[in-house]
Amino acid sequence: MPDATQAIPRDVRMQGFAQRASVDEALEWVGLHSKICAAENIPLDAAYGRILAASFISPADDPPVDTAVSNGYALRSCETVGASSYNPLSFHLQDNHSALEPFSATLVTSGTPLPMGADAVVPYELTQSGTETIDVIGSVAQGEGVNLKGQEVRKGTTLIETPRPLLASDVGLISSFGIRQLRVIRRPLVRIILTGRKSPEGYELADANGPMLRALVVRDGGSVEICQYGITDRNALSEWMTRPGADLILVCGRTGTGPDDEAPLAVTAAGTLSIHGIAMRPGGSTGLGVVGEIPVVLLPGSPLDCLCAYDLLAGKLIRNLSGCSLRAPYRIRQARLGRKIVSSIGTMEICQVRLFAGEAIPLGDANLGGLASVVRADGFIFIPASLEGYAPGAIVDIHLYDKADEAEDLSR
Amino acid sequence: MPDATQAIPRDVRMQGFAQRASVDEALEWVGLHSKICAAENIPLDAAYGRILAASFISPADDPPVDTAVSNGYALRSCETVGASSYNPLSFHLQDNHSALEPFSATLVTSGTPLPMGADAVVPYELTQSGTETIDVIGSVAQGEGVNLKGQEVRKGTTLIETPRPLLASDVGLISSFGIRQLRVIRRPLVRIILTGRKSPEGYELADANGPMLRALVVRDGGSVEICQYGITDRNALSEWMTRPGADLILVCGRTGTGPDDEAPLAVTAAGTLSIHGIAMRPGGSTGLGVVGEIPVVLLPGSPLDCLCAYDLLAGKLIRNLSGCSLRAPYRIRQARLGRKIVSSIGTMEICQVRLFAGEAIPLGDANLGGLASVVRADGFIFIPASLEGYAPGAIVDIHLYDKADEAEDLSR
Repeated sequence: MPDATQAIPRDVRMQGFAQRASVDEALEWVGLHSKICAAENIPLDAAYGRILAASFISPADDPPVDTAVSNGYALRSCETVGASSYNPLSFHLQDNHSALEPFSATLVTSGTPLPMGADAVVPYELTQSGTETIDVIGSVAQGEGVNLKGQEVRKGTTLIETPRPLLASDVGLISSFGIRQLRVIRRPLVRIILTGRKSPEGYELADANGPMLRALVVRDGGSVEICQYGITDRNALSEWMTRPGADLILVCGRTGTGPDDEAPLAVTAAGTLSIHGIAMRPGGSTGLGVVGEIPVVLLPGSPLDCLCAYDLLAGKLIRNLSGCSLRAPYRIRQARLGRKIVSSIGTMEICQVRLFAGEAIPLGDANLGGLASVVRADGFIFIPASLEGYAPGAIVDIHLYDKADEAEDLSR
Repeated sequence: MPDATQAIPRDVRMQGFAQRASVDEALEWVGLHSKICAAENIPLDAAYGRILAASFISPADDPPVDTAVSNGYALRSCETVGASSYNPLSFHLQDNHSALEPFSATLVTSGTPLPMGADAVVPYELTQSGTETIDVIGSVAQGEGVNLKGQEVRKGTTLIETPRPLLASDVGLISSFGIRQLRVIRRPLVRIILTGRKSPEGYELADANGPMLRALVVRDGGSVEICQYGITDRNALSEWMTRPGADLILVCGRTGTGPDDEAPLAVTAAGTLSIHGIAMRPGGSTGLGVVGEIPVVLLPGSPLDCLCAYDLLAGKLIRNLSGCSLRAPYRIRQARLGRKIVSSIGTMEICQVRLFAGEAIPLGDANLGGLASVVRADGFIFIPASLEGYAPGAIVDIHLYDKADEAEDLSR
């Protein structure tokens, strides 16, 4: 398998990163390791949000025959010409659905097939009913109140192009053809291995990454195979990477330059470490490798670094594996920067911003603030490695967290 | 309980609607019956997307003590003044975390507490290590590489204001305080009763509404209590409305003017039918009532009518009950109309549109096309009851289905 980088990552422990891969190299690696999961059959009731394995082609005309759009009486439209409240026209009430006799009408309800011969439905509002006859007090045009065979859908029409997550209306339409099972792309199984936070002096530092990564994997269409805490030993890490069953392995923590940062070495022991160290901030100690055929993403243990590296690389990989590479987790909105941002050339930086009066205000240093800065932010921006930052007033793309959804009132 | 309308709905069977409530009256009714569900405790791992019962206030400083941002050696910054590769300064390597001796340094890793006396962390890159000493080859400023106690979060700060769905980063931040259980608004339990499609002549017309409504309820933060098919009898419908356990009852089908449209009468028998017939298209036969304390929404059986009535009224009610009234299911984008739309004064119409070259093209008649028109559309627009339609070139609000998410590449 080709590698995005030539250089074999060296052991950075106690030394630091001599060089880092560019974000583009890391994304190229992600693209190369994005094998879409196989298809599986699921019941229709579980299909909401899933990705069809193949585009959905209408198996039949819909409606299958001419049907009534609304409740009323099916009749021949030509026989209603001239009807009005001053000139009610009488129709025999035919109580079966055989071919319609002349000047007869049959009671139909919304969605029911029309009797042979009928070409319109007159609503109750335009009739006065007797026991064996009805009086029609208004004329109807041919086809009025009728849903013609195949009018909604012709057999063989491509209705839902894959890949995209199925909406409720898609599920309804598929169900209307009597289909109860669907073939969809299997959710990628993601194994999450957490080394745990280090608290040498007895401080109990709780884990932020496990629950966060579980939620992120679900958000991106994956399924958590297992979420295992407290694996720190190199051999144990290797063993967890080698065990079959996952489509992707995320190891969180022990990726840096500390003496006990064994995760990169565990990848090397079990497979191939392709990239260790990426020119991004937060998330600079991220690693990418392969064990067997399975991609392994090493995420930094600092929660903000973990989130940024996940979003940029692991989330994209999960979306690719799930068959829906375009499902982006954040909406983008352009805004003017309210203050300048200084960034290092050669490193892509991710900066949390708040929106005040339509302007984006950066929230401090990219490496500080932790998850609290994300929780306080309205979104984030990327500052490419080629830039020293942005001047105030620059137009930037904000990736929105969409916390306080705008009140989009459906009543307007 | 006050009613939005004065008039008591009459039996419309075989007669038609003499009058209909306005959409505003229907929405006012929804507002009056939107009692937020009670709170419940859930494990943090299930909290993604849920609504906190109360705003989350930081229970502690984060970090709880001064900690290292990155790996390296903690020391006194003033002792590094003048250090360079031409003038390496030697520090004693102290291998415990007691108070730091003068000209000593302690190995620290990202996230670990600093020893007493240290005020900076020098990264490995600026050191050359021996066995009992290190040489520092660059000076560091006070606070460099240090995350001060409470720098990310001060105890008592409001971090997450409710109501909004929790993001993965929120879950991570809450977890970092060692919290493993959260108090959230209970998901409203929604009972779905389907009368089933009528196929008098033996045509097997499959149900579209059940799977669609299941998906819609989940989308809007509800939970399906039960989804029961084939209830058509008035007494049976009343009985299903009376049975306890649900926060909201949706009855689908048998709402119109046909002789067997018993759903409104079943509400009257079991409770109060407040509104039957709404001046909207599709969805004109929608009904609203109360049985016991529980709101009942009668949705038309035609799938497109069902979807529109659900989106306008039932979905809003579910979002209100779930405590998150602002979570809108559709993004709104403005666009120019590429063709005129004709609409009836006095009736709010919902028109499916496709976007071609940035212009919104209406997809035929509001009542025809069924779910297939939704599946073919990019979104829909509302034409208010006060308008006869829109001229070509009018700027309209498109409620987007977001099927083909724009490729929002995170790598930029």
